[in-house]
Amino acid sequence: MKKYYLLTPGPTPIPPNVALKEALPILHHRTSEFAQIYKDVSEGLKYAFQTANEVYTIAGSGSAAMETAVVNLLSPGDEIIVASCGNFGDRWAKIAQSYGVKVISVSVEWGKIVIPAQIEEALKANPNVKAVYTTFTETSTGVVNDIKTIGEIVSKTNAVLVVDTVSGLVGQEYRADAWKVDVTVSGSQKGFMLAPGLSFITLSDKAWKLVETSKIPKFYFDIKKYKKSYATNETPFTPPVTLMVSLLEAIKMIKEEGLENMWNEYKLLAKASRAGMKALGLELFGEVPCEVVTSAKVPEAIGGKIVKTLREKYGVSIAGGQGDLKGKIIRFAHMGYIGKADILVGFSCLEMVLEELGVKIEKGKSVAAVQEVLMGK
Amino acid sequence: MKKYYLLTPGPTPIPPNVALKEALPILHHRTSEFAQIYKDVSEGLKYAFQTANEVYTIAGSGSAAMETAVVNLLSPGDEIIVASCGNFGDRWAKIAQSYGVKVISVSVEWGKIVIPAQIEEALKANPNVKAVYTTFTETSTGVVNDIKTIGEIVSKTNAVLVVDTVSGLVGQEYRADAWKVDVTVSGSQKGFMLAPGLSFITLSDKAWKLVETSKIPKFYFDIKKYKKSYATNETPFTPPVTLMVSLLEAIKMIKEEGLENMWNEYKLLAKASRAGMKALGLELFGEVPCEVVTSAKVPEAIGGKIVKTLREKYGVSIAGGQGDLKGKIIRFAHMGYIGKADILVGFSCLEMVLEELGVKIEKGKSVAAVQEVLMGK
Repeated sequence: MKKYYLLTPGPTPIPPNVALKEALPILHHRTSEFAQIYKDVSEGLKYAFQTANEVYTIAGSGSAAMETAVVNLLSPGDEIIVASCGNFGDRWAKIAQSYGVKVISVSVEWGKIVIPAQIEEALKANPNVKAVYTTFTETSTGVVNDIKTIGEIVSKTNAVLVVDTVSGLVGQEYRADAWKVDVTVSGSQKGFMLAPGLSFITLSDKAWKLVETSKIPKFYFDIKKYKKSYATNETPFTPPVTLMVSLLEAIKMIKEEGLENMWNEYKLLAKASRAGMKALGLELFGEVPCEVVTSAKVPEAIGGKIVKTLREKYGVSIAGGQGDLKGKIIRFAHMGYIGKADILVGFSCLEMVLEELGVKIEKGKSVAAVQEVLMGK
Repeated sequence: MKKYYLLTPGPTPIPPNVALKEALPILHHRTSEFAQIYKDVSEGLKYAFQTANEVYTIAGSGSAAMETAVVNLLSPGDEIIVASCGNFGDRWAKIAQSYGVKVISVSVEWGKIVIPAQIEEALKANPNVKAVYTTFTETSTGVVNDIKTIGEIVSKTNAVLVVDTVSGLVGQEYRADAWKVDVTVSGSQKGFMLAPGLSFITLSDKAWKLVETSKIPKFYFDIKKYKKSYATNETPFTPPVTLMVSLLEAIKMIKEEGLENMWNEYKLLAKASRAGMKALGLELFGEVPCEVVTSAKVPEAIGGKIVKTLREKYGVSIAGGQGDLKGKIIRFAHMGYIGKADILVGFSCLEMVLEELGVKIEKGKSVAAVQEVLMGK
């Protein structure tokens, strides 16, 4: 009898009431009933994104919305700035280069955060730049970028700011309109506490002007099709109906709880997780830790084994490092439907695994550190 | 208390055991457990497609797989033949034209089936044609094309044959390899008895050679990424995990029932539906009716009202016409999880609605005609 505990940065656990909605008899998508669901979902998404603009739902993984944010704004030969600090930031460059877009990189070493002043300089040095692409919370390393400051900088230029919030939305304070972000993309399987399969995108008026000049060919990701259908509460292609119905349930929970309260809760879980890591003697990784995932350095000899043993022996899923960080860090998620006790599960099992792998630790010490924070002491 | 009966050509009803799988606690997708599920799903898809080639799963609507079949085979300026007989066939041309591909049309009037001899002539007249794109069952009109004959013709040329089986796969005899089809695309929400959100594609060796020369830019739909990940039972982007888990359950049902038995059952339901339409005095629409949906002409004055009244008064969802056929035909689906009694529900309610709308019918007559066929008399 295997019991699993999911502490990974996506997919995150799904609340039972949300999961059960997926199992309800399916609705037809060209009906007034589904139109109402789509309308309510879209209104809920506006709240989650903190925007007054329309938010469109695209059937696909988070990368589908990222690609939508590239192919609708640009033309081959256009110049963009990519400010990356990890695996998901790098994806912006890969997508753009696939479409013949020239990428000016102001990327930083993994673990650091992108430097707003570098973006400002790059914009000055390259006045033709059409857009700046960056990441809110970079889950591959566990940091959060200063989108508000970047928004101030980019908004003073002709360029638009495009931000990937796939992992951070709902999990940490983010305000698309107030922070002057032109295009925000996200996905269903992290903060929204849902299964993967839906991705989202919202655009400012400034971004829509770029859409009009874009010459990159597209069909499925053509944002104009989504805008047109949105007017009648429809999607241009058959939507993942069961995921939409369950998303509406998740959105109801988010509204009832209130975004600010959720942000505060994840902030507390993040603080507790950082305290737990320190108590274990593990050095935190990442210049400015985000509030949806906590990364810590681990001895390279046992890096991969920690993740594997936690899962095989105790059913606890956490994440290891990606790319060059493989085997060098571990990542504990506290996004989506993850509560206080889940963090305690994670650290109490991590203690046992570390000792089993020969690391000298004091049993219960990280648990106590986590408890201290959770109890607000 | 509203009770719904879904007789639409996608989404189709989902078996309760399949639907419940969607509600199970979510698995992480980079684990051996999920790799095994993906492997089993992929093997099941090979059976459903009747192919020995790999079948890839893409997160998205059916149109996502259609676009994948365009952007991976062609380059801007390439010539293709599109043999369309309806709304979904026309989509091939729209996608291709979005990418600067020259479309040679051998399309026919909606309601007719595409003419293999015209494809043969067009291939002779245009020896540079890279591919022929067509549709298996065209749900917008209710016909089925002779893919076997078209496969014979195209296989003798340098062109590849690409077939959209989104609505027909599992519902009607289709054999990708035996019929010499190079690329087959499909989706989750019709014959597979699942929610929308997954699309599928399989390619022959001949098609893979075209992939090597394709110059249309792509990222999310880059089939090489899917092939590479497939080797380790992974997907290049986060897969819709809950839909994959429920797909495995649906595939188990399909295997247990046997494709041939399923084809025979839908054939019977189609025959019964045609008998029912005739008994109502409604003329069948479509030159060669397919076995997954039955179309019939209705008086234009009440065309839209039939669908609306059926739904609002009796909770029965059927489909009307699309495009120029709006208000002119009704469409009864018998694909996916639709059984004998569902057809009787459809016709018995249709009788009441027709009489309410002033059509002179004999109550019980179409039901009797359906019963006759279902009882094998």
